Amino acid sequence: MSSIEKVLSRIDSNLDDSLGRLFDLLKIKSISTDPAFKAPCREAAEWLAKELTAIGIEASVRDTSGHPMVVGHRKSGKPGPHVLFYGHYDVQPVDPLELWHQDPFEPSLKTKEDGTKIIVARGAADDKGQLMTFVEAARAFIEETGDLPIDVSILFEGEEESGSPSLHPFLEANKEELSCDLALVCDTGMWDPETPAISVMLRGMVGDEIIVKAASRDLHSGSYGGSAQNPNHIVASIIAGLHDENGKITLPGFYDGVIEVPEDVMAMWNTLGFSVEEFLGEVGLKYPRGENDRTPLEHLWTRPTVEVNGMWGGYQGAGSKTVIPAEAHAKFTFRLVGDQDPDKIQEAFRNYVKSKIPEDCSVEFIAKEGSPALRLDFAMPVLEKGKTALKAEWGKDAALVGMGGSIPIVGDFKRMLGMDSMMIGFGLEDDQIHSPNEKYNLTSFHKGIRSWARVLDELAK
Amino acid sequence: MSSIEKVLSRIDSNLDDSLGRLFDLLKIKSISTDPAFKAPCREAAEWLAKELTAIGIEASVRDTSGHPMVVGHRKSGKPGPHVLFYGHYDVQPVDPLELWHQDPFEPSLKTKEDGTKIIVARGAADDKGQLMTFVEAARAFIEETGDLPIDVSILFEGEEESGSPSLHPFLEANKEELSCDLALVCDTGMWDPETPAISVMLRGMVGDEIIVKAASRDLHSGSYGGSAQNPNHIVASIIAGLHDENGKITLPGFYDGVIEVPEDVMAMWNTLGFSVEEFLGEVGLKYPRGENDRTPLEHLWTRPTVEVNGMWGGYQGAGSKTVIPAEAHAKFTFRLVGDQDPDKIQEAFRNYVKSKIPEDCSVEFIAKEGSPALRLDFAMPVLEKGKTALKAEWGKDAALVGMGGSIPIVGDFKRMLGMDSMMIGFGLEDDQIHSPNEKYNLTSFHKGIRSWARVLDELAK
Repeated sequence: MSSIEKVLSRIDSNLDDSLGRLFDLLKIKSISTDPAFKAPCREAAEWLAKELTAIGIEASVRDTSGHPMVVGHRKSGKPGPHVLFYGHYDVQPVDPLELWHQDPFEPSLKTKEDGTKIIVARGAADDKGQLMTFVEAARAFIEETGDLPIDVSILFEGEEESGSPSLHPFLEANKEELSCDLALVCDTGMWDPETPAISVMLRGMVGDEIIVKAASRDLHSGSYGGSAQNPNHIVASIIAGLHDENGKITLPGFYDGVIEVPEDVMAMWNTLGFSVEEFLGEVGLKYPRGENDRTPLEHLWTRPTVEVNGMWGGYQGAGSKTVIPAEAHAKFTFRLVGDQDPDKIQEAFRNYVKSKIPEDCSVEFIAKEGSPALRLDFAMPVLEKGKTALKAEWGKDAALVGMGGSIPIVGDFKRMLGMDSMMIGFGLEDDQIHSPNEKYNLTSFHKGIRSWARVLDELAK
Repeated sequence: MSSIEKVLSRIDSNLDDSLGRLFDLLKIKSISTDPAFKAPCREAAEWLAKELTAIGIEASVRDTSGHPMVVGHRKSGKPGPHVLFYGHYDVQPVDPLELWHQDPFEPSLKTKEDGTKIIVARGAADDKGQLMTFVEAARAFIEETGDLPIDVSILFEGEEESGSPSLHPFLEANKEELSCDLALVCDTGMWDPETPAISVMLRGMVGDEIIVKAASRDLHSGSYGGSAQNPNHIVASIIAGLHDENGKITLPGFYDGVIEVPEDVMAMWNTLGFSVEEFLGEVGLKYPRGENDRTPLEHLWTRPTVEVNGMWGGYQGAGSKTVIPAEAHAKFTFRLVGDQDPDKIQEAFRNYVKSKIPEDCSVEFIAKEGSPALRLDFAMPVLEKGKTALKAEWGKDAALVGMGGSIPIVGDFKRMLGMDSMMIGFGLEDDQIHSPNEKYNLTSFHKGIRSWARVLDELAK
């Protein structure tokens, strides 16, 4: 048996233990966006540092002004690229809790009707399950061969789900320590349960929250209805005016910097057999929304969008309350592509919102830091090694795909540390990340560990 | 001293005790719209029945399928009209609780900077303070003269703030017992702190709640944004499309049955010195919204409106969550005037909403029972007696006004029991009913009690 085959065999026989460790991590309620969960975030970081140290990767918890980072190294000047593996230990909030079929922080292994084994918990797929695939691959390599085949550093973040406020200062302050030859980022998905993928195109993002204020207090809609401004109506008209009848976004200059995809790339995508009926059918929908002159894969990967992630104003309880609220709220996120400038988009959005505010009302904005979109070089040499490793594990060519969601870290690695990222992950469309009953297939976890072992082995060649 | 003067004098000297009894009632958390407060609603009914019985009005708590009614009588075939006094013991929810400067159910007597004494508590003005003005007037009359000057019946309801679902069956089942010569309804306000008012025109109301459903679960806005329907955007476009650029409501047939106010009535209203700057300025606004070819008093009393009392969908917590929610909600109320038909308005609204729902989405409606608008005869003979009594107490002619809010009971008394209503109340514009820090002026309470004593006295003449 070659050494990689021994490593793979050890991964197989250690799977139950690997799963037990993942469950321990999933039990920690590391919701980064909610200040109430500050302590569990630190607990997750400490758990990871201890785990890395135990397997021979020198690791420590590093304080920031927010949730801490975990940084680890095992390097001895070996030939081959020195890689930095990135993942995040924080998770999304769990509401609406009543739609979960179990406690989100009591992970369980379940078997679906079709026999698929799934790991159910908040963070199972995003991103604890994914980051543990690398940790377990590293463990098996060291246990079996006494070392890793290349030099490895690790960065685990705890604020990915809440805008990564501490990331820039941390990268800036630790530039030398964290600058490697290549980043390996594990926060993406497979093309389908049989086809691995490497993501080469990421949308950017910019967000804003608005608070529209009218009267100085809640009003009785019988006494003031028709006369006083109603913030619910103002917010609704702001949202409704963002798209025209063809699904185009109406902000002036919004499409500046949007780049059309080259024909050969579109041709490759057309071979992927993407079915919008299946994609939407899986979530109970049928017809693609959005710009009506674009294909669904364009909507997803190469076209900018705006979505209202939350809106609220007035009475939400049972029964009725005849009130005109003093204020109403909405949270917006824009997905950006090509060379769209997050700052200019935010400025155009704010000017638009202000133009819709009546003279005796006001608006406040709460910004979410933006990040521009990112495209990787299709000819990047390490991509070939990644593809070889994934094909060996999955028996199919890896798809080179775009990503609808943004992974700002990839842009930061490029811009701040001068480092390209190879984005490989094992999530699936139906993982319900950010939703109740999030899951990660046991196959994703098991073959994900094996995939990373193969990637490390290939990179050493 | 005439007997009415002795009664008034007793009211003055008993004011502290009257206030103590009102505080006892205000402490009971009788929020009718929230099922969690079922027990306190019954407690309020029982407290009132006991109180009435103690002062010599034979009263009982009557079960319904919802919150109970309180019915009382003191009648002996005296000359003069037999009146039915109506009030409601239920109150609005108290959210947002954090904006209250005190516990909403721990009433307090406070002195404002200008020296005005106010009673602060949920229900102080709407309607516990108001109904107690009549109870205390009756108490003083009986204590001082041994009887009431005319036959009196009483009906206290516990579901006024939640659509009065039990009222129709109760009136139907107790038609004979409750049919009197005249209803006295105390749920309205003064024209201003010096000028009493009798309300002669009431808007009707019809309400609807919509639940727009799209995907079968919450979606990640990075993965599905631009492709999948977002219920927040659908609800926003429904709300935004309800008004045109002139403030007119766009539903087909909506203005059918709207009646223009006769010129002489408009002329009388113009003498009231209504200031839209003051009306809106008091709540921090400046410019009237609504149909831009109508006066503000028309907006308030004689024009139909639609207001969104609540809307919500997606994430409302701290920070951001990149989600497309599975559903979004909105609560609507229409104020109706003239002969507008609540059922037809609801039908037009629902057809409009359905026309805005994409083919792969759905909508559910939760109806709120409607009531048409109501106009009283300006020449109703008892109006003159009411005006005389109020002028004697306040030293100023009572204004005959319209009402923006609806008081469906007045329509029910008319249609089901064939009984006209004289609507007299002592609330003020700044009472913050349905809002945090609801209050009732001590003057409203004190002179309100005196006013009812005078009204009873006048009606006996």
